[in-house]
Amino acid sequence: MKKILIALGGNAILKKGENGDYSSLISHIRNTYKQLLPIIKNNKIVITFGNGPQVGILAIQNELAKNKFSQMPLDVIGAESQGWLGYLLEKELINILRENKIKRDVVTILTQVLVDKKDKAFRNPTKFIGPFYNKNEINKLKGYKIKKDPRQGYRRVVASPEPLEIIECNTIKSLVNKKSIVIACGGGGIPIHKNKNNLIGIEAVIDKDLASECLASSLKFDEIIIITDIERVAINYKQKNQKFLDNLNLKDAKKYFEEGQFPEGSMGPKIKAAIHFIEKGGKQVVITSISPSGKSIKEMRKTIIRK
Amino acid sequence: MKKILIALGGNAILKKGENGDYSSLISHIRNTYKQLLPIIKNNKIVITFGNGPQVGILAIQNELAKNKFSQMPLDVIGAESQGWLGYLLEKELINILRENKIKRDVVTILTQVLVDKKDKAFRNPTKFIGPFYNKNEINKLKGYKIKKDPRQGYRRVVASPEPLEIIECNTIKSLVNKKSIVIACGGGGIPIHKNKNNLIGIEAVIDKDLASECLASSLKFDEIIIITDIERVAINYKQKNQKFLDNLNLKDAKKYFEEGQFPEGSMGPKIKAAIHFIEKGGKQVVITSISPSGKSIKEMRKTIIRK
Repeated sequence: MKKILIALGGNAILKKGENGDYSSLISHIRNTYKQLLPIIKNNKIVITFGNGPQVGILAIQNELAKNKFSQMPLDVIGAESQGWLGYLLEKELINILRENKIKRDVVTILTQVLVDKKDKAFRNPTKFIGPFYNKNEINKLKGYKIKKDPRQGYRRVVASPEPLEIIECNTIKSLVNKKSIVIACGGGGIPIHKNKNNLIGIEAVIDKDLASECLASSLKFDEIIIITDIERVAINYKQKNQKFLDNLNLKDAKKYFEEGQFPEGSMGPKIKAAIHFIEKGGKQVVITSISPSGKSIKEMRKTIIRK
Repeated sequence: MKKILIALGGNAILKKGENGDYSSLISHIRNTYKQLLPIIKNNKIVITFGNGPQVGILAIQNELAKNKFSQMPLDVIGAESQGWLGYLLEKELINILRENKIKRDVVTILTQVLVDKKDKAFRNPTKFIGPFYNKNEINKLKGYKIKKDPRQGYRRVVASPEPLEIIECNTIKSLVNKKSIVIACGGGGIPIHKNKNNLIGIEAVIDKDLASECLASSLKFDEIIIITDIERVAINYKQKNQKFLDNLNLKDAKKYFEEGQFPEGSMGPKIKAAIHFIEKGGKQVVITSISPSGKSIKEMRKTIIRK
C-alpha cells in the first residue's frame, strides 16, 4: 500500500456559479469519490479539502448577524467550515465504501496549523474574504484591513501565511497506520500561532495545498494527488504558445515557477507545494481534475511531477 | 487509569445571559479545565459537550442569509457547531496540559450518531430551535414544524430522537487506548439515519447526555461525569421539601425518574443516561457543576449514582 494524500479543490465539492444547495454538494462529492475509488481502496489515504466558498458564506452570515451575536474571528469560522464539509465528505465516503463492500474506518480530524505571527504575509494581507462593501460602509468597519477588489467594491483582506506544523499530526499518523481513511486539514487548517508555548488562534487563511504538503511531508507520504479545475498544468497559460505538460521534473518546475508561469492564488501554490514535497523526499505529485463523465482517475489526463 | 467520559454542559462554556464573545468562551473553558485537571491527567478521557447556544446562533445566521445562500439543514449546522466548540475546547486543553507539563495528545473527532427515522420523537417534535417568529411570519415558513414558545411568539420545533450508535466509535476507542484525550459527540452528535446501509443526514438534535451514555457504554467506560448548572440532583426540586442527594442508587433513581421528579430538558435526560449506563455495566455517574471559585472537582459537592 502506498501512502497518498488527496487534496480536493473547491470544484470537487461545488462547481463555479452554483449556489451550493445541500443535494448538489452531495452529488459532486459522490462523483468525486467515484473517480477516486480505485486509489482510495488500495492505499493508505488522507483527504484534505478547500473551503473557499463555505468560509465566505459563514463569514457573511456571521457579519449579517453581528447586531444579535458576538462575531467570531476567522479561526472559529474556519473551524465551522471544517465541520460542515468534513461531515459531508466523511458521510459520503462511508456510503461509497459500503456500496462497494470495502471495510475501512473513515474519520474527520479537526486540524489546527501553526503559523508564524511574524510571517511577512501579515504585513501585506492579500486574500479577499467575506462581503463586498461600498466606500461609505468601510469607514464604519473596525479592525479590518480593507482593499479594493478588482471585481467590485471593497473587501476585507487577510493574510495567507506559510503553514509550519500540523498540530494533530501524531494522531493522523496513528490512524493512517491502522488503515483508517483520515479527512483532515480542511480549508488549509485552523491558523494558530504560539505565544511562548501557548496556542492562540489568529485571523488568517492558510493555502490548502501548502498545508497538505506540510502534512504529507511530516507523515513521510509517497504521493500527493491535487484535484483542481484543470486537468493538466500548462506553461504560457492562455497564450498562443500554451503547452500542457504530462510530466514535469523538479528542475523545470522550479525554473517555470521562478519565471512566474504559475499565478498566485491558482496554480502557483500547487507547484510550490509539489516542489517542497519532492525536495523533502516525496515520490510524486499528480495534478488533475474531476471528470464530469465519470472517468476513473487512471483514464484522466494529468501532470505528474517527479524528481 | 480509569476510563472516564466528561460531558460538559453549556454553562461550562457560556454562562446564562452572556453574549458569548470569543474571550469569555475561552475564559470559561479554561476555568472548567482547571477544575477537571486532576481527573483528566490521571485517567483515559473522552470529553463531550453541549452546543445549545451555538447551534441556535448558527441556525439564525443561516436563516438571516437565506436570500443570499442556500440554507443548510440542521445536520450541517450541528457539524459546524462541532467545529466551532471542538476547536476552542481542543486548543485550550492543549494549552492547559502544556502549562502543567502533561504530555498527552488531544484530538477532536467529528461525530455522527445514528437515530431511527421511526423514533416517536419525529411524530411529536418538542425541541425549540432558531429564531422567534410572529403569527404573520409563520405562514411563510415552509417545511418547518412550528409551535408556540411559552417564552414568546412562535418557534421551529425539531425532534430529539434516541441515539442508537456512534458511527466513529472504533476510531475513538483506538485513540483512547493509546491515551489520547478525545473530544467527541459535540452537541449530541450529527444526527443521521440509515436507508438500507446508507447514512443520510436528518434534521434533529440529539440530547448530549444520552449520546454521551451511548458512547461511554459502547467503549465500556467506568464512569461518566456530567457537568451541569447545579451541583447536586434534588428531589422535590424548588418545593418546600426539596432534598439534595449526595448518593443515589439505581433503584431509587428509577423510582424518582418514574415519579417525574426530573423534568424533561434539564435533569431528566441526565438521570435517564445514568440509569442506562449503570444498567449496561458502568460503575458510576457523577453529576456536579463548575465552581466559579476555582475548587477542584474533589472539593465540589456532587451526586454520585451507583448500582
